Amino acid sequence: MTPLLKEIRDSPLLWMLVFVPVVLATESLAPSAHLVLFVLAVLAIVPLAALLSHATESVAEQTGDAIGGLLNATLGNLTELIIAIAALHAGEHVLVKASIAGAIVANSLFMLGACFLLGGLRYHVQEYNRAGARLHSALLLAATVALLAPAAISNFELAQGEQVLRKLSTGLSGLLIAAYGSSLLFSLRTHKDFFAAKDHNGKDEAAHWPIGLAVVTLIVVTVLVALVSEIFVASVQEAGRMLGMSPAFIGFIVVALVGGAAEMAVAFSAARQNRLDMSVAIALGSASQIALFVAPVLMILSYAIGPTPMDLQFWPGAVVMMMIATVTCCLVTNSGRSAWFVGVLLLLVYAIFAMTLYVIPPGSARS
Amino acid sequence: MTPLLKEIRDSPLLWMLVFVPVVLATESLAPSAHLVLFVLAVLAIVPLAALLSHATESVAEQTGDAIGGLLNATLGNLTELIIAIAALHAGEHVLVKASIAGAIVANSLFMLGACFLLGGLRYHVQEYNRAGARLHSALLLAATVALLAPAAISNFELAQGEQVLRKLSTGLSGLLIAAYGSSLLFSLRTHKDFFAAKDHNGKDEAAHWPIGLAVVTLIVVTVLVALVSEIFVASVQEAGRMLGMSPAFIGFIVVALVGGAAEMAVAFSAARQNRLDMSVAIALGSASQIALFVAPVLMILSYAIGPTPMDLQFWPGAVVMMMIATVTCCLVTNSGRSAWFVGVLLLLVYAIFAMTLYVIPPGSARS
Amino acid sequence: MTPLLKEIRDSPLLWMLVFVPVVLATESLAPSAHLVLFVLAVLAIVPLAALLSHATESVAEQTGDAIGGLLNATLGNLTELIIAIAALHAGEHVLVKASIAGAIVANSLFMLGACFLLGGLRYHVQEYNRAGARLHSALLLAATVALLAPAAISNFELAQGEQVLRKLSTGLSGLLIAAYGSSLLFSLRTHKDFFAAKDHNGKDEAAHWPIGLAVVTLIVVTVLVALVSEIFVASVQEAGRMLGMSPAFIGFIVVALVGGAAEMAVAFSAARQNRLDMSVAIALGSASQIALFVAPVLMILSYAIGPTPMDLQFWPGAVVMMMIATVTCCLVTNSGRSAWFVGVLLLLVYAIFAMTLYVIPPGSARS
Repeated sequence: MTPLLKEIRDSPLLWMLVFVPVVLATESLAPSAHLVLFVLAVLAIVPLAALLSHATESVAEQTGDAIGGLLNATLGNLTELIIAIAALHAGEHVLVKASIAGAIVANSLFMLGACFLLGGLRYHVQEYNRAGARLHSALLLAATVALLAPAAISNFELAQGEQVLRKLSTGLSGLLIAAYGSSLLFSLRTHKDFFAAKDHNGKDEAAHWPIGLAVVTLIVVTVLVALVSEIFVASVQEAGRMLGMSPAFIGFIVVALVGGAAEMAVAFSAARQNRLDMSVAIALGSASQIALFVAPVLMILSYAIGPTPMDLQFWPGAVVMMMIATVTCCLVTNSGRSAWFVGVLLLLVYAIFAMTLYVIPPGSARS
Repeated sequence: MTPLLKEIRDSPLLWMLVFVPVVLATESLAPSAHLVLFVLAVLAIVPLAALLSHATESVAEQTGDAIGGLLNATLGNLTELIIAIAALHAGEHVLVKASIAGAIVANSLFMLGACFLLGGLRYHVQEYNRAGARLHSALLLAATVALLAPAAISNFELAQGEQVLRKLSTGLSGLLIAAYGSSLLFSLRTHKDFFAAKDHNGKDEAAHWPIGLAVVTLIVVTVLVALVSEIFVASVQEAGRMLGMSPAFIGFIVVALVGGAAEMAVAFSAARQNRLDMSVAIALGSASQIALFVAPVLMILSYAIGPTPMDLQFWPGAVVMMMIATVTCCLVTNSGRSAWFVGVLLLLVYAIFAMTLYVIPPGSARS
Repeated sequence: MTPLLKEIRDSPLLWMLVFVPVVLATESLAPSAHLVLFVLAVLAIVPLAALLSHATESVAEQTGDAIGGLLNATLGNLTELIIAIAALHAGEHVLVKASIAGAIVANSLFMLGACFLLGGLRYHVQEYNRAGARLHSALLLAATVALLAPAAISNFELAQGEQVLRKLSTGLSGLLIAAYGSSLLFSLRTHKDFFAAKDHNGKDEAAHWPIGLAVVTLIVVTVLVALVSEIFVASVQEAGRMLGMSPAFIGFIVVALVGGAAEMAVAFSAARQNRLDMSVAIALGSASQIALFVAPVLMILSYAIGPTPMDLQFWPGAVVMMMIATVTCCLVTNSGRSAWFVGVLLLLVYAIFAMTLYVIPPGSARS
């Protein structure tokens, strides 16, 4: 257990683990104190997510390159996945979809933009391997087209609407997962040489844990995240209303930023160390993974968990935001160079979205 | 006649010419066997289209560079044109428009994607001259904007709607044809040097025919294609219904793939010979030609042929698909390099479209 | 006064200054001769705009690089601003918005396209610094997204619609102006080195005036432009109707081309001297400035001037046109090279817009 304790002692972020027992205790004592529970749940999820991502990396590192990459890729968005499963279980399809779309937009605009800005404030120009950025942007673009299709179809007043939509959603999920699999094959196996980092300087950001500890941590933390996520999902809507936020803002912005907090911490610190390749890989890799893997998996899981199965029909506004975020990413990452202003631009687009969602009154944005 | 017979003997594709008399005979014996007629017509059109494209090339080759290029460019989509004229004659405007949009999407996503995939399975990375790809993508983008305009206008409930639409369609046709003319001037005359192939290795894929034979073949085959196309158009809707396909799927996917079968065969074989310049030129050149030349010519012809004149107002879903296909092409061909996964991505977008069209129930997608 | 007189003698454009007293006299004699007043106002605005831009440059030149750049940037669209203020004062919000959107589209498609075409007719290939083009295209893209948001929101039938819209417009204006400020900081201060012209050959297109003369000219001409703009705004709608133009066409095309006439003259002449860096900077710089600075300033000014405050909700068709223009610019300027056909393509897209607006009957396009 020494490496885990050492890790916790060295990393102030992990001191926030104290909020895990606090939120669990509060929930059993005062289950209707929504605002307090919401704040405590957010504070507890952040360090758990950090631990989770570290444990995933440690396991991945020790299982060889291909399997490790696969593990890292599939477990990388575990926090988002667990939060979404909690929401699915509660039958909150609108929240699930908003958090999927929100995570895609937050990763491709906010996380990437903040990396470019933070890195750019230290370095005049930063370069990164654009092959990876291109691959992920292109995958995102294709996935966004897939999510556009069911939204487009909903314009027809179909007699068998529900059924057609479900058939289409299932088919698209299959396509997305297949494309995701091919992208792993491409980037980890056949064309590995394209994706070598430009500035890999050997040293890693942290010592890695023995495999046993990593696996145990993975399991324990996953359970804890699941417990806290239940509380988070149950309190977020009510708390947001008390804070004057629109439901659209909560689903898209708050949930997405909380779910991605740990990854953002890693990506930002990499950007400030001039390791922009890593930042770009985390931000865009995570976005494309949510679109091509998490979203279809959630749809399939919804047949097992939760009151009714979920389709892939998103609110048109969400599709437009994903589309704009994706095209912006494609255009911005085209050159493989970055300066602080590129970050400002991406953050500007994100701020426009956040502001618009904030002013939409309750009940306007439906899935 | 020897070269023609030799060609037929050497090319298994041309053995399918036997279906030409078969379909014509069947039509006069059993005019209501829609499913049989449909299958036979498809089987007959494919080898005819192959002959037609070979004859066009032979004529083009022997009339000097500029005129040859012009001929090749204007006759290149003769099969599509003849099928569309048959549909126009039958007053099937919805089918004509679906086949135009479908051909643009099929060429820029399916044909290009399959070329990248087939080539990429043999070669690690393939390079091509991106000047040509850019020219055609840009032309396609502009043409798509032109086809968007009438669709956008239809949102207004106009008193003189029909008339305004026809005026606009005529004006846009003029613009498109003028742009097409300029693009030929640009690529064949003033900036010919930009468009030189990167890997032209001298040998051509087939011996060419004497001019007399080529012209006669051109005329005879055109007549045959016209006859078979009439049967194809008359049977496709009914046959599709019997096979459980939506009319949107038939118009967009089936007609487009049948019309482009011969070109696809040539483009695929070029890709597998690492002659990606030729593949890209065929796929995108054909798409831009349909948008800028075939579509406006059909609109103008509709005043002479068919019961009522046709406008350029497309079903909004078709415009969105063309727009997405075009932007995807622009982004993908930007680098002038390709690997197998690029092909997978393009095919993925095409599969999303095909799947969506397949589930749309009859009567939902109108022009 | 000698330099001013010399300038007027040497430049035939300035001989048109004679129309300034003519239009003012005509207005007081025959205030209802709309068509005559419209024509005279156009003829008077063009040379005034040319003088204004020359005076601005002279002042900017003599106040040091950073302040000069700022001045040049903020006064560069003075003509457009004054015309728009006149329209705002008359409560013509639809006209104001149409002229904003029209100026963005005209600068990024017509002005840029004509520069590429005129330059390309003389030079086989022209190169320019693409850093500037990219910066402005990216800014334009972000600004277009900001203008899309209020239009998207208007689809909800909101109880407090008006109020929500005004809150959003104010917030977005703040974001846009902040982004504009950052872009000046970036291009004039922190990353100045990126934006050096490729072909700066020392000589400037005209001798500059002493500072006193420049400031006096600036003030006098601003007053004259304001007076003539009032007449222009008062007569344009009526005159357009008499000429058979739709109001959408007048606002988008006519007002935008008149307001930008002087800048266009400078940009075209630079293109023909192979100084494409300057042309691109004028065209795209002006477009991004209107989107990020003029539009929000007008919204804020509308609280002081005019009968009712103006929001930033544009007619959806206008947003689509800005979006297409912006994405086209991003794709076209990506390479930093140009030939005549690139100009034809941009002009083609502009012609499609102009033609579509021309056929829209009165009363169809509302803000």
